Amino acid sequence: MNTEIYNTEDINTGKVLEKLRQKRPIIHHITNYVTVNDCANMTLAIGAAPVMAHAKEEVEEMVAISNALVLNIGTLDQTQIESMLIAGKKANELDIPIILDPCGAGATKLRTESANKLIMDLKISVIKGNAGEIGTLAEAEAEMRGVESGGVKGSPETVAKTLAKKTGSTIVMTGKEDIIVDANKIYKVHNGSPMAGKITGGGCMAASLIASFSAIEKDYVKASVAALICFGIAQELAEKQSDGSGSFHTQLFDKIYSLSTIIIPQYQKYIRRDI
Amino acid sequence: MNTEIYNTEDINTGKVLEKLRQKRPIIHHITNYVTVNDCANMTLAIGAAPVMAHAKEEVEEMVAISNALVLNIGTLDQTQIESMLIAGKKANELDIPIILDPCGAGATKLRTESANKLIMDLKISVIKGNAGEIGTLAEAEAEMRGVESGGVKGSPETVAKTLAKKTGSTIVMTGKEDIIVDANKIYKVHNGSPMAGKITGGGCMAASLIASFSAIEKDYVKASVAALICFGIAQELAEKQSDGSGSFHTQLFDKIYSLSTIIIPQYQKYIRRDI
Amino acid sequence: MNTEIYNTEDINTGKVLEKLRQKRPIIHHITNYVTVNDCANMTLAIGAAPVMAHAKEEVEEMVAISNALVLNIGTLDQTQIESMLIAGKKANELDIPIILDPCGAGATKLRTESANKLIMDLKISVIKGNAGEIGTLAEAEAEMRGVESGGVKGSPETVAKTLAKKTGSTIVMTGKEDIIVDANKIYKVHNGSPMAGKITGGGCMAASLIASFSAIEKDYVKASVAALICFGIAQELAEKQSDGSGSFHTQLFDKIYSLSTIIIPQYQKYIRRDI
Repeated sequence: MNTEIYNTEDINTGKVLEKLRQKRPIIHHITNYVTVNDCANMTLAIGAAPVMAHAKEEVEEMVAISNALVLNIGTLDQTQIESMLIAGKKANELDIPIILDPCGAGATKLRTESANKLIMDLKISVIKGNAGEIGTLAEAEAEMRGVESGGVKGSPETVAKTLAKKTGSTIVMTGKEDIIVDANKIYKVHNGSPMAGKITGGGCMAASLIASFSAIEKDYVKASVAALICFGIAQELAEKQSDGSGSFHTQLFDKIYSLSTIIIPQYQKYIRRDI
Repeated sequence: MNTEIYNTEDINTGKVLEKLRQKRPIIHHITNYVTVNDCANMTLAIGAAPVMAHAKEEVEEMVAISNALVLNIGTLDQTQIESMLIAGKKANELDIPIILDPCGAGATKLRTESANKLIMDLKISVIKGNAGEIGTLAEAEAEMRGVESGGVKGSPETVAKTLAKKTGSTIVMTGKEDIIVDANKIYKVHNGSPMAGKITGGGCMAASLIASFSAIEKDYVKASVAALICFGIAQELAEKQSDGSGSFHTQLFDKIYSLSTIIIPQYQKYIRRDI
Repeated sequence: MNTEIYNTEDINTGKVLEKLRQKRPIIHHITNYVTVNDCANMTLAIGAAPVMAHAKEEVEEMVAISNALVLNIGTLDQTQIESMLIAGKKANELDIPIILDPCGAGATKLRTESANKLIMDLKISVIKGNAGEIGTLAEAEAEMRGVESGGVKGSPETVAKTLAKKTGSTIVMTGKEDIIVDANKIYKVHNGSPMAGKITGGGCMAASLIASFSAIEKDYVKASVAALICFGIAQELAEKQSDGSGSFHTQLFDKIYSLSTIIIPQYQKYIRRDI
């Protein structure tokens, strides 16, 4: 097929955002202690309600009152992974979407193996990572399942598609161009600013936004595209009013907070392509 | 009685704040990892000195050099609760005020039970929560002590009074109107901005401020009212100069930092009523 | 000797900073949960790449891909200290510089003993603390080694020199005047703003900057001086554009981010003295 459609109307990010703000979904995070405050504030800025809880004794109850679950392995340890598995199983049982951020997969064995364990044991709705992380998981999946790993080499798009096919999850590969794929379709989002790389937590906050949208829009590709459009536009607007990484950081929350159905269509830049 | 007195001079928040800034009390926090940075910065902004320490081996020593102790169960686990109990017992021994933030009580069993255990085992000076948290604890207290739980239903004021009577603590119930009660008196603070709900940590920072004032003013109702007046005024001033949740967050520290004996009387809005 | 040389050209902070930004060294932190976000953002603002990881299973691998290691005991516990020892031994093996921030040494036994254990078991490149922390460690070192502790009393400079001699490390004693010493030379940095004391994490961020420069400049005294000049200048510039502790905090990152080879020579204030 390969029909590229630019800024097609089938996402309607503004409408989903309005619904999000009305429903105010609860987003349960089991995440790293580096950017957890940013994740909470980003979740609030978009209009959802964050909750953070990691104790084994309570994660099932917390998931049960939530509308999406973020699992981020940025500062993982064994205890945390166990809690993620407990929370994740409950989320699967209740059909609550799970967003996995395999932060640092590929950098250490613990991270790669933990991310893979989460993928194998849980039904993950969206796996969001950078090229290195998604590549690592695509490779590992290939190896674990005895598939020739040659297939995962190649373009970022191919790698993302490989992982999508293996896992059945929506794959979000962030970068200068964000790639979002599932078994049937590919989107690319071109919004964003290089300033996002000058602060920590850009990827983590993106996961919080994807979770917030996934609580509302059950087509997780569309939810992820909507989240990344919002995040990218906010970055562009924040960059214009900042004098460095500190004010960019502050502005990023202001701009997400101020997004509207009027601003989004003016700035959004994305491509859809059928597979 | 029910005599409502508006902006009566018996609090004198400005004077207590001046004393606080001269004495620079040390506020030991055992708190959650989501908003801990905000709590430290808020404590510094008001003029006190924060210290964070959770290891069982050191909490007693840390409490012993502190002037108030904040216990916040926002991201609790069993190990942390044990440390809270150790620190709390030492604080009681040394007559150092304890401020409890039963964050999320009612949301999970672990939170409700842990908050209740802290209340049962420790002498808490101030329990600060939202309506749901205070309601949960009032109910639980009622149940545990075999009291008919019907009594805790009703107005927020009644619920707060019930918990105050049961525990002997000063109760702070935050909301659009903050209610502060002990066995003898009720205050209501009307300062504040809805923007405080758009960032995480508002309640946690309020607890840090209450602790800072409680280290100076031994009438904990007055200390809590003074803290909430300061926090509410800062929110109002911050709102005026912010374009969203990010700049509001930044401004909140600036405004607390800049509070003075001139600003406070101009903006404070509170009611006292004898019981 | 005692020749004081003001703003001598032998540091050339601007050039080291340019090299830092080209090389983008990876700085592994095992640090406290209070200021970890600030440390990550400060590392990014100067041009390096932060990574945070504490699990025993992965710290060796993480160190192995890093260019410097920060150990900060601000919210220590036994598990964390074990991870620090594992990571530190690997760093020593690979000749990766270790920067120790003995945060709170002197306040509790656990902190003093843990800092001393790290110093005894590891080869530390730079120990950075305030006068109290460095004094505690100089004293403890003296006691442990059976040296008369009288020697560590006296001027801050003497205390710093004592610890430098005992440990072989570069010692950074921060304060109104920052003192940087090793066995052969002393520098003093006079840049900085009192506003840095109004936010949490000033010391922690200084350690992140020292680590970033130590990954590039192998004379750790010069690396530390360069880092403190940058941090002090940024504080001065940030103070001018801030209205309180919140905006100062934000500005601090902007100013570090915007430092250039043109700005630094205009503002730097430091003294070198041969011993």
